[in-house]
Amino acid sequence: MKLKRKLKMGMVGGGPGAFIGEVHRKAARLDAKIELVAGAFDIEPRKSQQMARQLLLNRRRVYNNYKEMIKEELKLPVGERIDFVSVTTPNNWHFPIARDFLKAGFNVMCEKPMTFNVRQAKTLQKLVKSKSLVFGLMHNYTGYPMVKLARDLVIKKELGEIRKIVVQYPQDWLATPLERTGQQQAAWRTDPKQSGAGCVGDIGSHAENLAEYITGLKITHICAELTTFVKGRRVDDDCNCLVRFDNGARGILHASQVSIGHENDLAIWIYGAKKGLEWHQEHPNYLYVRELGGPVQVWRRGNDYVATKSTAAARATRLPPGHPEAFFEAFANIYCNFADTLRAKLEGSKPDKLMTDFPDVNDGLRGMLFIETVLASAHSRQKWTAMKR
Amino acid sequence: MKLKRKLKMGMVGGGPGAFIGEVHRKAARLDAKIELVAGAFDIEPRKSQQMARQLLLNRRRVYNNYKEMIKEELKLPVGERIDFVSVTTPNNWHFPIARDFLKAGFNVMCEKPMTFNVRQAKTLQKLVKSKSLVFGLMHNYTGYPMVKLARDLVIKKELGEIRKIVVQYPQDWLATPLERTGQQQAAWRTDPKQSGAGCVGDIGSHAENLAEYITGLKITHICAELTTFVKGRRVDDDCNCLVRFDNGARGILHASQVSIGHENDLAIWIYGAKKGLEWHQEHPNYLYVRELGGPVQVWRRGNDYVATKSTAAARATRLPPGHPEAFFEAFANIYCNFADTLRAKLEGSKPDKLMTDFPDVNDGLRGMLFIETVLASAHSRQKWTAMKR
Amino acid sequence: MKLKRKLKMGMVGGGPGAFIGEVHRKAARLDAKIELVAGAFDIEPRKSQQMARQLLLNRRRVYNNYKEMIKEELKLPVGERIDFVSVTTPNNWHFPIARDFLKAGFNVMCEKPMTFNVRQAKTLQKLVKSKSLVFGLMHNYTGYPMVKLARDLVIKKELGEIRKIVVQYPQDWLATPLERTGQQQAAWRTDPKQSGAGCVGDIGSHAENLAEYITGLKITHICAELTTFVKGRRVDDDCNCLVRFDNGARGILHASQVSIGHENDLAIWIYGAKKGLEWHQEHPNYLYVRELGGPVQVWRRGNDYVATKSTAAARATRLPPGHPEAFFEAFANIYCNFADTLRAKLEGSKPDKLMTDFPDVNDGLRGMLFIETVLASAHSRQKWTAMKR
Amino acid sequence: MKLKRKLKMGMVGGGPGAFIGEVHRKAARLDAKIELVAGAFDIEPRKSQQMARQLLLNRRRVYNNYKEMIKEELKLPVGERIDFVSVTTPNNWHFPIARDFLKAGFNVMCEKPMTFNVRQAKTLQKLVKSKSLVFGLMHNYTGYPMVKLARDLVIKKELGEIRKIVVQYPQDWLATPLERTGQQQAAWRTDPKQSGAGCVGDIGSHAENLAEYITGLKITHICAELTTFVKGRRVDDDCNCLVRFDNGARGILHASQVSIGHENDLAIWIYGAKKGLEWHQEHPNYLYVRELGGPVQVWRRGNDYVATKSTAAARATRLPPGHPEAFFEAFANIYCNFADTLRAKLEGSKPDKLMTDFPDVNDGLRGMLFIETVLASAHSRQKWTAMKR
Repeated sequence: MKLKRKLKMGMVGGGPGAFIGEVHRKAARLDAKIELVAGAFDIEPRKSQQMARQLLLNRRRVYNNYKEMIKEELKLPVGERIDFVSVTTPNNWHFPIARDFLKAGFNVMCEKPMTFNVRQAKTLQKLVKSKSLVFGLMHNYTGYPMVKLARDLVIKKELGEIRKIVVQYPQDWLATPLERTGQQQAAWRTDPKQSGAGCVGDIGSHAENLAEYITGLKITHICAELTTFVKGRRVDDDCNCLVRFDNGARGILHASQVSIGHENDLAIWIYGAKKGLEWHQEHPNYLYVRELGGPVQVWRRGNDYVATKSTAAARATRLPPGHPEAFFEAFANIYCNFADTLRAKLEGSKPDKLMTDFPDVNDGLRGMLFIETVLASAHSRQKWTAMKR
Repeated sequence: MKLKRKLKMGMVGGGPGAFIGEVHRKAARLDAKIELVAGAFDIEPRKSQQMARQLLLNRRRVYNNYKEMIKEELKLPVGERIDFVSVTTPNNWHFPIARDFLKAGFNVMCEKPMTFNVRQAKTLQKLVKSKSLVFGLMHNYTGYPMVKLARDLVIKKELGEIRKIVVQYPQDWLATPLERTGQQQAAWRTDPKQSGAGCVGDIGSHAENLAEYITGLKITHICAELTTFVKGRRVDDDCNCLVRFDNGARGILHASQVSIGHENDLAIWIYGAKKGLEWHQEHPNYLYVRELGGPVQVWRRGNDYVATKSTAAARATRLPPGHPEAFFEAFANIYCNFADTLRAKLEGSKPDKLMTDFPDVNDGLRGMLFIETVLASAHSRQKWTAMKR
Repeated sequence: MKLKRKLKMGMVGGGPGAFIGEVHRKAARLDAKIELVAGAFDIEPRKSQQMARQLLLNRRRVYNNYKEMIKEELKLPVGERIDFVSVTTPNNWHFPIARDFLKAGFNVMCEKPMTFNVRQAKTLQKLVKSKSLVFGLMHNYTGYPMVKLARDLVIKKELGEIRKIVVQYPQDWLATPLERTGQQQAAWRTDPKQSGAGCVGDIGSHAENLAEYITGLKITHICAELTTFVKGRRVDDDCNCLVRFDNGARGILHASQVSIGHENDLAIWIYGAKKGLEWHQEHPNYLYVRELGGPVQVWRRGNDYVATKSTAAARATRLPPGHPEAFFEAFANIYCNFADTLRAKLEGSKPDKLMTDFPDVNDGLRGMLFIETVLASAHSRQKWTAMKR
Repeated sequence: MKLKRKLKMGMVGGGPGAFIGEVHRKAARLDAKIELVAGAFDIEPRKSQQMARQLLLNRRRVYNNYKEMIKEELKLPVGERIDFVSVTTPNNWHFPIARDFLKAGFNVMCEKPMTFNVRQAKTLQKLVKSKSLVFGLMHNYTGYPMVKLARDLVIKKELGEIRKIVVQYPQDWLATPLERTGQQQAAWRTDPKQSGAGCVGDIGSHAENLAEYITGLKITHICAELTTFVKGRRVDDDCNCLVRFDNGARGILHASQVSIGHENDLAIWIYGAKKGLEWHQEHPNYLYVRELGGPVQVWRRGNDYVATKSTAAARATRLPPGHPEAFFEAFANIYCNFADTLRAKLEGSKPDKLMTDFPDVNDGLRGMLFIETVLASAHSRQKWTAMKR
């Protein structure tokens, strides 16, 4: 039974001054598959109402807090009620909100990191499974078409056995004690109570997710050094790791918030026995493919030769070659696949495999395992700390 | 009196298989300022209905043709009726549709080229003026933040007197006789009856618009060579010009649809007496600023040092540095300023200057003057052909 | 009969403070095929002696002027006498010196531009022919391996019919009236009596030579605009041309000495019916090869896949891939081929074809024809001025 | 007392087919400060003679082995005798040859790695000191002008306290078992008896040297993983390290010979509290300087603003901006400073500080300490292994 309407989205978080909530809204809106109908945007109800007015939302669907939202939305009939909720609060709230919505039977799109610890992540994993709900985790960088191409080249064995992976995420926005200036983003992200970990949790986990997504490999061991360069900061702002993967591949993973001159310089190099790949988030439309003994190839998004190798990349593409796509579209691709999967479920059909290509509760658990392993390793004098599954 | 609703948009063109119509829809949607409520999407009513279903539009607002759309929308009360129409048909339809909507009192957003000739362009210019309507022309590349920064650096005299401008728009998609394969885009764009001119009209005019937008200068003379490299093609596919500007600056403007390996490689270099600028559409987040005797500076979108120099660039920015923005956002910026200007008008207030920063009917006329001058020059044995104002 | 010694080189020009003379010396020295044994380095004998001391030259081989050099060297027995002379004076001296050495039976390596006008160039052409001497012209940029690869790709028809060529040489060192500060290089290069032409002669001719060398095509028509942007300057400092080639290809050639931020940004784009090429002098180890419908290929100097396509490129390469080569080596490549050709002649054998791959008196004549045609066109109101052969 | 002649150089190694020996010869020759007069080029006397003929050397100065060379050269009077010897043999010969020449009173330029182990390195260090001889170690990458600029920016405190260093040296030439094909370079470099270590010794030590040279910091602790990816290979071909520096800075150092698509991609990123630097060996003429909150600056070799910050960079520059310099010139810069220092010594004067800017026996010892520490760490289960001084 075809659903002749957009999916209805609620949002917790994303109030005035928030960054990522507005990104979620734009990304969800771009393809006209989803409409925002309800929200509890801020911990202060007044600010939540203010945001709702800006968004031209129906006032009755704006709630004082997320618990009220659950309770009231449940009273609405299916079809009017939200089909899913997007959780875009500071990190410490992700878990309880996601958990409560899942318990109440709502599908969830959650910002990363999914939870504060592995235990909570496993709780969510069990809930999603037992409730048969759709759960998306916003590891947005895997939404880029050329990342999907990279993954498909690995799957098609074009690289041969993977030998080495170098993945980085340097930034510089915390090179000074910005949190002491009252800057909102810096304040909560360097507060261990709100953020959990520092650099490793905020961006290190993106690097981990990107490497595992493209290669299909799993990290098994980590040797980590965490450093806090800015005096007085209560969380790490630099993270350097040696890593080992389950096929024997070696890796380097590093992230930093004090690497002056870098903005969001997430990048990855993958070396197989036959080919090498390179991709940069800040230049997302290009994938560098290198073959032993041949010219470097610059693959460009949107071309038929990309589509030939990767249906997922083609599906994640909205514009022809040379009209660049970027961050919002990658973000929107996560929403698209999440929405298509959810729609299929609501229509009683089985989503095809391409639709289910979005990060989920299992990726969220991997992220928490990664963070905990890095933290453990950073405190260990042993070289290697195993990362549990 | 504040307008507490989104602006209502109608669309003519943008049916199944069309490229630019869907771009208009996504761009108009991104910022939640505009909602599409009506349309005549295709010359075949059946296809128009098909598109409307995809878009989940109200069937009663889907029309068999644009004339019916005008007639029926006029019957609706203001507030329910469309506030403006977007014209995204093949080129030959731009003029009659825009003219008729304007005559009926509707505001218009029109794809480029605005008309088929200068005479038509002047007709629209008069209509817009006499009716006091808001008219936008989709020269989307001027929506990029770093283009706005470039313009503001010129306005602030940072470059000194402009001496030389090099602007290019090479593509390769028509390097072979693609139009003979049945490809829809190639077919109408190389049909002189539907497209008017070839390369010069399709992309040369973007180069002209970009150069004049950034520098604030006007082209006064052109020495052009138009070539058709693909045998049997009925329009030019390559355009090389020497140009002169009204301050005495010299320029080179070239565009091509047979430059193998280039996708949409619109780029501009501007040389003043004190500094030089360089910008590339395919890497839109960067502006290269070069000062005599100093290091090259790479200015990156989203930074405070950009905002300091250009309020227009800051206003056209949605994401922090390092999260790349691209084509859709530039397109959406044109819609934003158009919508803000229109909203101000509907609310009875005067739009501020930043809002009116979008290409309009005067830019459309410049474009037609440019195309006609290039065509005249291409047929002339004289070196210089004057471009009238 | 094998020559068991280095070739003996004399030099006219290249005194204290000169730039290009020292480049000639280093380039000639690099491969141990040539030794400098004599010179008249400066118009002031005292400075010439000073240079000779720096170079640890035998004082008896340092001359007061080039005429004395001819006379005295002729007294020496072959084998001790210089085998050739390098002329590296300001432009106005190239012709008389080259002519007199040729007349006296000496082989010549001459800096560009070869002469002051076409008439002189034809005189040298006749002399070289009638005397059967070896004459090299230092169009150094054609010595780069990747330029040779580009040429061989054209020869092998990999590009298909050439359609369009864009070639540029922007600099910025004359963006201000540097010649009025006493700077030696600027002074003679902007003095019409010493330099002949301005920008077009100094660097425009490099662009012409590069385009003709790689493509094997000849320019037939030019439409030029020359401009002097710096007030009071007596020669042009900016040169923009539309050009036509003998196969019907179209071209743009522009050069400038006021393009702020560019150092020696000689670059060329060549578009054929099947492939496109791009090369930049400042990044000489890379050739960008673009095929319709495929990834961009970055060919890197020194690889087997380069050698496979171009024996000339392989022969012009001294280092393995990734150890960059640059300006001196390109310069030295011209000397190598010149020296190998001269050596073959001295040994009584015929140089193989690869050895004769260096610019000669015919290229010098092309350069003068180019400059004269540009100057004529710049003064003409007709669009096209024919370039004679 | 001024020395009115070139310095006389002998060479051990660099026979037919050798790569680095010929680089030494060209680099030593470029600036006309040094002439090659004697050699024992190959372990086979016949091949040594063959090389001498190619080089047009006096047959009497070609020796059957290096011991004969020492003995015979000592018989020649000072001034005719070699002033120094360059050792360019496979690694295992560096130590005995350097030692014996030092013992005999000769100055030495030695290829890296200096020795096979720390003990030998200390022996050389003592010898150089006790004999008061000039000893150069060919860590050629520190010869690049922009590396010297980077160092001077650090010295001038422009970066603030150094926090993090990332240095890499990926290659791909050993991605397959090339050594089993008979390729001479691969054969000895993967033979533990001739090369000592694998990737870490061959190129990892370049990374170490570059980082310590620019920052002036010393590595104190290493956590290393060495891997052999190609089956049957007897040495490591991949090296990943976390490192700590003596000021508390953190670092990542990685090198690889199996990173497909990389040629000699030595690169370094240095992050201070105020600025960041980036440099790439394959694009040596550029230094990227990044300041918090400002545009990226691309500093280009040869400019006055470079000279203002770094006399060492200016001194190491032969060409004006935009005429690229590369590998040979960097190599030659090491020879220049070595030669100027040696000349000063021979003339009885004290070399100025700029002259002594070349890697020496102490750098060689650091290299051996680095290699031994990496090897120890790679076998350790402890995270950190201290690097002794």
